Amino acid sequence: MNTDRTQVVIIGAGPSGLLLGQLLHRAGIANVVLEQRSPEYVLGRIRAGVLEQVTTDLLDEAGVGARMHAEGLVHDGFELCFGGARHRIDLKGLTGGRTVMVYGQTEVTRDLMDARQAAGLPTVYEAEQVRLHDFDGRQPSVSYLKGGVEHRIACDFIAGCDGFHGVSRASVPARSIELFERVYPFGWLGILADVPPVADELIYSNHERGFALCSMRSRTRVRHYLQCSLEDQVEQWDDARFWDELRRRLDPQAAETLVTGPSIEKSIAPLRSFVAEPMRFGRLFLAGDAAHIVPPTGAKGLNLAAADVRYLSRALAEFYLERSEAGIDDYSRKALRRVWKAERFSWYLTSLLHRFPAGSGDTGAVGHRMQTAELDYLVHSNAAMTSLAENYVGLPFEE
Amino acid sequence: MNTDRTQVVIIGAGPSGLLLGQLLHRAGIANVVLEQRSPEYVLGRIRAGVLEQVTTDLLDEAGVGARMHAEGLVHDGFELCFGGARHRIDLKGLTGGRTVMVYGQTEVTRDLMDARQAAGLPTVYEAEQVRLHDFDGRQPSVSYLKGGVEHRIACDFIAGCDGFHGVSRASVPARSIELFERVYPFGWLGILADVPPVADELIYSNHERGFALCSMRSRTRVRHYLQCSLEDQVEQWDDARFWDELRRRLDPQAAETLVTGPSIEKSIAPLRSFVAEPMRFGRLFLAGDAAHIVPPTGAKGLNLAAADVRYLSRALAEFYLERSEAGIDDYSRKALRRVWKAERFSWYLTSLLHRFPAGSGDTGAVGHRMQTAELDYLVHSNAAMTSLAENYVGLPFEE
Repeated sequence: MNTDRTQVVIIGAGPSGLLLGQLLHRAGIANVVLEQRSPEYVLGRIRAGVLEQVTTDLLDEAGVGARMHAEGLVHDGFELCFGGARHRIDLKGLTGGRTVMVYGQTEVTRDLMDARQAAGLPTVYEAEQVRLHDFDGRQPSVSYLKGGVEHRIACDFIAGCDGFHGVSRASVPARSIELFERVYPFGWLGILADVPPVADELIYSNHERGFALCSMRSRTRVRHYLQCSLEDQVEQWDDARFWDELRRRLDPQAAETLVTGPSIEKSIAPLRSFVAEPMRFGRLFLAGDAAHIVPPTGAKGLNLAAADVRYLSRALAEFYLERSEAGIDDYSRKALRRVWKAERFSWYLTSLLHRFPAGSGDTGAVGHRMQTAELDYLVHSNAAMTSLAENYVGLPFEE
Repeated sequence: MNTDRTQVVIIGAGPSGLLLGQLLHRAGIANVVLEQRSPEYVLGRIRAGVLEQVTTDLLDEAGVGARMHAEGLVHDGFELCFGGARHRIDLKGLTGGRTVMVYGQTEVTRDLMDARQAAGLPTVYEAEQVRLHDFDGRQPSVSYLKGGVEHRIACDFIAGCDGFHGVSRASVPARSIELFERVYPFGWLGILADVPPVADELIYSNHERGFALCSMRSRTRVRHYLQCSLEDQVEQWDDARFWDELRRRLDPQAAETLVTGPSIEKSIAPLRSFVAEPMRFGRLFLAGDAAHIVPPTGAKGLNLAAADVRYLSRALAEFYLERSEAGIDDYSRKALRRVWKAERFSWYLTSLLHRFPAGSGDTGAVGHRMQTAELDYLVHSNAAMTSLAENYVGLPFEE
């Protein structure tokens, strides 16, 4: 068995793990990233594409923002579509100048991979049978198999950035963790296609046939979504059906502007609110999807992961550079406080925009009328639009 | 049979019926009010006590605002209590100067009764077997028994202001009306007592033992409420138990200030969201509780009734004075648009502040965490507090 030593072992080479690694490196903290998949697999996952300013600031701080600023699209607002008309939410005007950046998670991951490679930092891809040891004591370690050889890395801390299905959260004894979950009675059918966007900004549509979202990755690549049944299979949705259905759920002008084309990717995802508490277990920290999932409405998933990483990187820097445990002791409380606000917002926006099947909880005919009243109130109230906007661009950090 | 004729027959001598009568009278429109109960019974009903500025403006317009301005309490804000601390919502500061008036519905009704009597306007109390006739044609009438004698009043219009259980809505064929209803899994136990208020302003408390509200009618009379089980009986709650439980649900400072005393009135009410659509059927109009019920959180019931009366009185004045049917044709749409916004707000505030029993819909452990996050967000966001405040003081009218 090969035994190494580092300061922090990061489980997972997705955007949160890589971003944490980069920030720690810049603070002079040694780290190793372990990932069970290959780099190609990681880059093949299509995820969110809207970054809060706090996230872009953090990418800049990590030194990986150059291509994002060159190729990403700054959006000053988005549009809500209902009752056959669109209403603009002026993010920039309502929040005193804050905006969001449209730049795909895949691109963020690629930039972080490149930076990590350029800095010569150790990353182990296709690490099998990853196991976390002794994180309830002062000498944790992580073991794995690579090319048939068993390895073990002794460390001070483990950061679990390995997503909802990862080994990190699963390593915590059930009695030490409390899980909160809500599932939604519908899914999102998404396609990626190389056609121009419907409009300059994103369109979120509340339509009697169901929610639709016209998003984009660039000026030549779109990411569109349709609310679908949880029973639906991708095979039932050929490209023609998808485009026809999307067109029906838009206002007449957007429907006319819609340019169709062959899909590059098509998939169905369920919607879920999930939180694990706490986010620290001795010398193990959870960050990102390993600790929480939001429904995708409002694009909070990646941004929330970045917020965790921001808190965690500062806490670890405080530990190593200032010999203070205050930051790591407060990590879980601080992170969860922000997490639940984002959970609340994502649930609110999901509830506001989707059509709920009859008999599903707080909905039905009354729920639909409440939705309509909320939308009517929202687009006529500066306060309500400001509240929506400040959540959308990202709430301020607790320092 | 005695047959009379008037322009508008108003069913119900509660605050909406009497206010409508007063406004019509001032516009020169003849009206008769029919009420199945006695004046003493009507005045004995304890109801809401927080008036929006639009309601006080309307009472002034009806010429009945003098005693309200002399005896009512103008409140510039209210307090939210959670996590053992109180947070003030500065209504006046957040809304550019708008406030609410604490003045009991009973007092409003008394002022309207006195004004009606002083003006010598016809009111028939203890009218039995009230029946509405031919409101789908151009010659409606209302019949009733009084002292064993059958009466009939021919009229141009009927205004159904007779509450949730009244005959007006019940007279509409089921096929012509759509009903929306949501019930809540708890009730409100309320007491009236002649002791000084806990604080200068109302306190809405979200506590793990359930919601509590410290309200008042004057500087010497309080109206307090506790969230209770729907199975609870008033007999289970003697005064000592009520005061003990209320004290537990307040922050330490409020608990200490609480002055107890014998209850004058004690009752349990269920919470319900209810709307009937439309609010006009030919020559019959519904207004107030006859058409909609809100849960009492946020005190929208009487204010919404006043808003209906405002729209309806103007529509009828337009009909008689300008010979235009535009107002009456638009009454239902306009009123319902405001009704649903108030339904939304009342539901929101109810959901935010009550403890939901396990397994009741959008709640449970996730719901509780969402509540906590919403409260935490709310009291730290100027936009969110402004949105709350502008709904609390009353949204602007659509003219």
